[in-house]
Amino acid sequence: MALTPATDLGPATALTCRECGHTRELGPHYACEECFGPLEISYDFADVTRASIEAGPRNIWRYRGLLPVPGNVTDTPNTEPGLTRLVRADQLAEALGLQRLWVKDDSGNPTHSFKDRVVAVALAAARELGFKVLACPSTGNLANAVAAAAARAGIRSAVFVPSNLESQKIITTAVYGGTFVTVDGNYDDVNRLASEIAGEQDGWAFVNVNVRPYYAEGSKTLGYEIAEQLGWRLPDQIVVPVASGSQLTKIDKAFQEFIRLGLVEDKPYQVFGAQAAGCGPVAAAFKAGHDVVRPVKPDTIAKSLAIGNPADGPYVLDVVRRTGGAVEDVTDAEVVEGIRLLARTEGIFGETAGGVTVGVLRKLVESGALDPSAETVIINSGDGLKTLDAISSSVAPSANIAPTLEAFRAADLA
Amino acid sequence: MALTPATDLGPATALTCRECGHTRELGPHYACEECFGPLEISYDFADVTRASIEAGPRNIWRYRGLLPVPGNVTDTPNTEPGLTRLVRADQLAEALGLQRLWVKDDSGNPTHSFKDRVVAVALAAARELGFKVLACPSTGNLANAVAAAAARAGIRSAVFVPSNLESQKIITTAVYGGTFVTVDGNYDDVNRLASEIAGEQDGWAFVNVNVRPYYAEGSKTLGYEIAEQLGWRLPDQIVVPVASGSQLTKIDKAFQEFIRLGLVEDKPYQVFGAQAAGCGPVAAAFKAGHDVVRPVKPDTIAKSLAIGNPADGPYVLDVVRRTGGAVEDVTDAEVVEGIRLLARTEGIFGETAGGVTVGVLRKLVESGALDPSAETVIINSGDGLKTLDAISSSVAPSANIAPTLEAFRAADLA
Repeated sequence: MALTPATDLGPATALTCRECGHTRELGPHYACEECFGPLEISYDFADVTRASIEAGPRNIWRYRGLLPVPGNVTDTPNTEPGLTRLVRADQLAEALGLQRLWVKDDSGNPTHSFKDRVVAVALAAARELGFKVLACPSTGNLANAVAAAAARAGIRSAVFVPSNLESQKIITTAVYGGTFVTVDGNYDDVNRLASEIAGEQDGWAFVNVNVRPYYAEGSKTLGYEIAEQLGWRLPDQIVVPVASGSQLTKIDKAFQEFIRLGLVEDKPYQVFGAQAAGCGPVAAAFKAGHDVVRPVKPDTIAKSLAIGNPADGPYVLDVVRRTGGAVEDVTDAEVVEGIRLLARTEGIFGETAGGVTVGVLRKLVESGALDPSAETVIINSGDGLKTLDAISSSVAPSANIAPTLEAFRAADLA
Repeated sequence: MALTPATDLGPATALTCRECGHTRELGPHYACEECFGPLEISYDFADVTRASIEAGPRNIWRYRGLLPVPGNVTDTPNTEPGLTRLVRADQLAEALGLQRLWVKDDSGNPTHSFKDRVVAVALAAARELGFKVLACPSTGNLANAVAAAAARAGIRSAVFVPSNLESQKIITTAVYGGTFVTVDGNYDDVNRLASEIAGEQDGWAFVNVNVRPYYAEGSKTLGYEIAEQLGWRLPDQIVVPVASGSQLTKIDKAFQEFIRLGLVEDKPYQVFGAQAAGCGPVAAAFKAGHDVVRPVKPDTIAKSLAIGNPADGPYVLDVVRRTGGAVEDVTDAEVVEGIRLLARTEGIFGETAGGVTVGVLRKLVESGALDPSAETVIINSGDGLKTLDAISSSVAPSANIAPTLEAFRAADLA
């Protein structure tokens, strides 16, 4: 596939290697020709103002002038993710001893995770690059998001999942139609197969493989929204779950862009990463003072964060160290307690990744790594309805009674 | 409980009986003193303009000047529901032979159903009326919404469900904390017990029982949003799922209020009701030309619509007949096909109630009752993640393969 003069990727200008800095032209590329490092989008932003953003649609496309998507992206059917709630969380703050806390609740997206953001950007760029099929390997949220986005756009999807996935997770993707393939193997096997297919099937855009540079930029919108929803300013501290690590680095990138564009005041902020202890390679590297991330074999209920060899791990370490943050991890029991605490204090039922973030927030406050008097934002990146198993043995009814007033009175519930 | 001079229920002025027209003062009342008919809120609206609404928050409180809630309602923590997507559904339209179709997707609410709207209004009014506990009988969406809203508001919830409810549905409410009681009986037993407790426990606001007049008004926001999101105009036709029937009548009320306030142009519109054949008492009454609705024993997969004796059934018939609409019902097989069609064409995974609405839309087009060339809106009131059982046997993967390129090629998926 080659770019035509009609190709419009908005303000994107080139692909730059994050390792060696080598730059090449835009296109369906994801690895550096020189050193095989990951490519990232470079931009030349036109005049983007608070007013021009506020005049945009009530979804991520209000930031289209900062994304690698065509200027007319809103004319094409898409799931219109974003502009999810930023919830002032006074009760959670009180429970943890913080003074000013916000939850960015991305469970409000169309398929109820932040993946709708990255998939929407990947889809828009993939169409522009001439791809015909939207594909991914996944075990959950990404599969939902890809199948839904492709259905809405009227193009074919091809989703690959391990064949031992729970039947419920199979249903939630299969319902959108498209090609849906179960693969006899674990997620690593599925991922490897996806890369092989991407190399062979010219028109297939695997969102997290061969169009990953575009896809990853979608996470910037989380950062943009937080700054805009705070009234065009940055928080002092932010806690972000770390799977591949991409989300954390892109939120930082978004903050930096807003500063450079003069959309927010330049001020210090600290970025913290949250992992599950059962899959905490970045936390381990941070604590050991290492620059490289040693892969681990995941063993945690936080499946959406269970990436043992996180592609952006080193860049997470860069951001966290540059801003004076930290990476911390919590046990599965702390994850469950985090889910319950968020639900009980703020009425937000997050998935396990949300529990990780709340648990890590608590731990960072207790250790003194995070300043409880500084304004803090945490990310809830997904929905508890998708990870019910994680809490099924931890929550229960208060009482069981016969259907009579007498039974109600006897149960002493008043 | 008595109102104090400080009680602020916004533009609400009185409670008026829908049967005999008798009016009484605002308060914690739900049945007419004269005839036991249902009470409804009367208003004296101040100056509400498009600009004043557009300047409001991005949730239902932008319409607070039209709801029975205090003027400072946004100062109190709440789940901030509403302003969900209105999705232009060209592919679904094409599949059904319509020209201009929109889906109002209320699965984007905080607990993923329209119940967040009515509960938020009930909570705001209940606090103002002096209630201390937010309660409900429920089998699903309402339980989620009440428990979440109370948690967020920092007040106690008391939710009553049949003890034979699936464990998954118990988890999704129990996670929010509060008092959660399973009752040995069916939903009717639970409902009756709730009424008895409401009569005895002074501070308990059962949202759908003793504060129902306030609660029901929350559904007006669906109508307001549709009109605003269409660019301050009314659709020609709207298809609304019918459980108690309240939602349909309140959307009509919202349209009428907008016309009276000069916020939209006065024009004819037709309101259609959608039921499942296994619980279609209003459809049956409509087809038979009756004014009264004969109760039925529900037997349908569309559990959120399974109200055999719908309180607002007669008022649904009034609205539908006044506007030239109809009430139609579909079989469970058609419900499943409706869910799948909505997912495949628009990437929206609706719950069974959404499947009912799509199925009825199709049937109304085929019968000629609905004009395919007129602009139509349908409501998706809840989320498919909550009713997975309904489609578990109808959707499946396309293929199962070994994790090799050879297997991929052999499966002929390219």
